[in-house]
Amino acid sequence: MTQANAFYAQSGGVTAVINATACGLIETARRESARMGTVFAGRNGILGALNEELIDTSLESDTAIAALRHTPGGAFGSCRYKLRSIEESERQYRRLIDVFAAHDIRYFFYNGGGDSQDTAHKVSLIGERLGYPITAIGIPKTVDNDLPFTDSCPGFGSVAKYVAISTREAALDVASMSETSTKVFVLEVMGRHAGWIAAASGLAQEKRGDAPHIILLPEVPFDEERFLRRVREVVERRGYCVIVASEGARYASGEFVADAGGKDAFGHTQLGGVAPVIADRVRARWGYKYHWAVADYLQRSARHIASAVDVEQAYALGQAAVEFALAGRNAVMPTIKRLSDAPYRWTIGEAPLARVANVERKMPKSHISADGFGITAKARRYLAPLIEGEAPPPYRNGLPDYVRLDNRLTAKKLAAFEI
Amino acid sequence: MTQANAFYAQSGGVTAVINATACGLIETARRESARMGTVFAGRNGILGALNEELIDTSLESDTAIAALRHTPGGAFGSCRYKLRSIEESERQYRRLIDVFAAHDIRYFFYNGGGDSQDTAHKVSLIGERLGYPITAIGIPKTVDNDLPFTDSCPGFGSVAKYVAISTREAALDVASMSETSTKVFVLEVMGRHAGWIAAASGLAQEKRGDAPHIILLPEVPFDEERFLRRVREVVERRGYCVIVASEGARYASGEFVADAGGKDAFGHTQLGGVAPVIADRVRARWGYKYHWAVADYLQRSARHIASAVDVEQAYALGQAAVEFALAGRNAVMPTIKRLSDAPYRWTIGEAPLARVANVERKMPKSHISADGFGITAKARRYLAPLIEGEAPPPYRNGLPDYVRLDNRLTAKKLAAFEI
Repeated sequence: MTQANAFYAQSGGVTAVINATACGLIETARRESARMGTVFAGRNGILGALNEELIDTSLESDTAIAALRHTPGGAFGSCRYKLRSIEESERQYRRLIDVFAAHDIRYFFYNGGGDSQDTAHKVSLIGERLGYPITAIGIPKTVDNDLPFTDSCPGFGSVAKYVAISTREAALDVASMSETSTKVFVLEVMGRHAGWIAAASGLAQEKRGDAPHIILLPEVPFDEERFLRRVREVVERRGYCVIVASEGARYASGEFVADAGGKDAFGHTQLGGVAPVIADRVRARWGYKYHWAVADYLQRSARHIASAVDVEQAYALGQAAVEFALAGRNAVMPTIKRLSDAPYRWTIGEAPLARVANVERKMPKSHISADGFGITAKARRYLAPLIEGEAPPPYRNGLPDYVRLDNRLTAKKLAAFEI
Repeated sequence: MTQANAFYAQSGGVTAVINATACGLIETARRESARMGTVFAGRNGILGALNEELIDTSLESDTAIAALRHTPGGAFGSCRYKLRSIEESERQYRRLIDVFAAHDIRYFFYNGGGDSQDTAHKVSLIGERLGYPITAIGIPKTVDNDLPFTDSCPGFGSVAKYVAISTREAALDVASMSETSTKVFVLEVMGRHAGWIAAASGLAQEKRGDAPHIILLPEVPFDEERFLRRVREVVERRGYCVIVASEGARYASGEFVADAGGKDAFGHTQLGGVAPVIADRVRARWGYKYHWAVADYLQRSARHIASAVDVEQAYALGQAAVEFALAGRNAVMPTIKRLSDAPYRWTIGEAPLARVANVERKMPKSHISADGFGITAKARRYLAPLIEGEAPPPYRNGLPDYVRLDNRLTAKKLAAFEI
C-alpha cells in the first residue's frame, strides 16, 4: 500500500473528549507516516470538505497535538449539517470525492453520532460507485450515549461524571439550608431522546435517601400528580428533595414538559427548559422554596472534571480508526466492547456502518426502577465504570491550559462550490 | 484563663469552603484543649443555639474533622434567620446567653456574611450588658465577596474559579459550533447586589477577542439597545458571543432584568432568571440561535474545582478565630489582608465587628471597563490570585469522597424555647 492522505472531521455537538479522539488519530497517523500522509481536518466539520477548507494538521507541533487530549470543544470546528440520501445529495457526495481526489485523500474519518455514521457509510458507497478508492471509518462520539453496538460513547462518561458530581455537591448545599430555605432543587441535564445523562446522576447516591431523590427520564412518561406526591413524600421524610430532569422529559402525550410552561408576555412559548417549569409546578402545589440550575453546555465541555476512562476510550477509538483504515477495513466503526463490569475491562470492537446508521439506543427498561423515578442496580453496574478516574488538564494561572491550534488551511485546488 | 466551651455556627448560603473554616477552627481548638473545651456546633446555624440543639463535635474523629477541609455545603446545617436589634430580639439574645451559660460556652464563633457579623457584634454587647463573659468572633464567609475590611471572602475565590473555568470551557464549545449552530451563549451567575462573581468570568480571557465578550454587572444599568448592538458587533467580528450575566443585572429603573420576562400562562412572573430573558431578547432582535445555562448552586458547591488559595484562607480564618478568642480579642473579625498582588502574598488581619456590620462592598468603578461590559486590568490584578491553585478532594468510585458527620446532639439542659 502506498502513502495517501486522510481527512478527519468532527460532527454535531462537541464534547469534553472529542479532541482526545482527534489526538489519538493524528498521533497514530504520525507514527504511521510511511503509509498515511497528511491528516487534513475539515474546518467546521464536513463543511470543510465541501468548501475545500482543509486544515493541514501537519503544521501543528507534536506538543499542540498532544494537548488536544486535554482540551474540550472541537479544535477544528464542528457543524450541524446532514447529508441526505445519495440520490438527494449526490452533488455533495460527488464534491467530497472531487476534493478528496484533488488532495490525494483516501482515508475518510468521521467523528460523530448516528447521522455521521450514516454519512461515513454513504461516502464509502459513493467511493465504490465512482470507482474512487476511499476507506471510510466512522468514530463514535455523543454525550447522549445513544449509538448502538458500542458499549458506551466517548463524551458520555465525562458528562455522566460531571452530572453525578454536580448533583452530589448541590445536594450537600440544599441539605445544609433546607431547614429555613430551599427545599427543592431541580437540575436540568441534556438528553432530548435518551435518559442516559439524567440516569448517571443516580451514581451520586451512596445510600438510601441520598440525592438525587427523583430522576425524570424521557423514557418514562411524566405523570405530574405522581411526581408532585413523590416530591412531598421526599421533603417530609428527608427535609429536602433533589430532582434531576432530562431536558427530554415528556408527558404521555409526547409533549415536552419544557414546552408546557405557557407563553410569555410577548406570546412566545416559555423561554425556559424543563427545570423552571417543574420547579414552578412544585411551588404552585406545595409552596416549597426552590432553586433550579440548567447545566447546558457546561456539562459537555467540562474537561476539567472529565472521566479518565472516557478520555482513554476517546483516544483509543481515534487510534483504532487509523489502525482499521490501514488494515483495509472499510465502512466500519470502532466500538467499545465491555469485557467485565468489576473490575472494568474493555477492548476495541468493530461494527459495520451499514448497521449503525440511524439506530438510537434508549435506556433499557431493566435500567429504570419500578417507580420510574430512579435507576436499578443493573444501571449502576453499567454506568459506574464509565466515570472512573480523573484526568485533570494542566493549569496555568488557576485555569485549565487548553490549546488553540493555528488551523492553517492548505491551498485550494478546485473552483468554489455552492453547498 | 480556665477552660471553657465554644459555640460555632454556619450562617446563610453555604459555600465550597465554609467547612474548611470549620475544620481550621475545630482542629485549632483541639490543639488548644487546655484552654478551649468542647466546640459545640449549632444544628442549622444559630437556630441550633436558640433550640439548644448543640452538635458535640468532640464525638467526631480527627479524620472526619480533617475531611471537612475538602467537603462543600454546611456540615452542621446553616440557616437564613436574622436576629434584629437587641431591643426587638432581646428574648432571643437572652436565650442565647441562657444556652451558653447552661453549657459553659464562653466563645461564640459566627461564620457568615454581613448579617452574621452584625449578630456576632450584638452577642458581644448583650454578654457585656448581662455580665456574661462571652468572647464573640465573626468569621467571614460569602460567595458574594461583599464584606468590607477583608480583601476577599472565603467562598468567593472558588466560585470565581468555577465561573472562569466554566466560561472558558463553554466558550470553546460555542466557538466550535458557531458556524452552523449556536451563536450566542448566556451564562447566569450569582450576585444579586454585587458583580464580583460575574466579573471573575473575565479571568477566562487570555487575549483580545476571548470569551466572555460581554459581562453584565449589577453595578452597570442594563441598556438593552447598547447591549443588543454589542452582541451583533461581537457575532459579526468573532462568529459567536459569550455573555456572562449576573443574576442582579438591572435596568436604570432598578428593575431586575430577570423580572422583565413577563408573565407565564398562569399570570405568574416569568419563572426564569436573567439568562433566558436575555437570550430571548437577542433572538427576538437578531434571530441568532442561542443556548443559556444557569449555574445556581452548582457554582457555590463546586468543591471539586475549588481554588487552593480560597481553601487555605478559609482554613486560616477558622484557625485565626480560635487564636483571637484565646488571646482575649472580643467583637472582632479576622480578615484577609493582601500584602502584594504578584507574587500574591497575604496575611491575617482584624476588623472590629462594630464597623463590619451591614456594610456592602460593591465593585469599585475602577474595576469596570469604560464601556461597562468588561473588567479592567486593575480588576484582573485583584481577582487573579484568588483563583490560584487546585485543591482536589479525594475520589472514590469516580466521585469526590465527601464526609458526612454524625452530628450527635448533646443532652439538653433547658426547657424548650419558642423562637
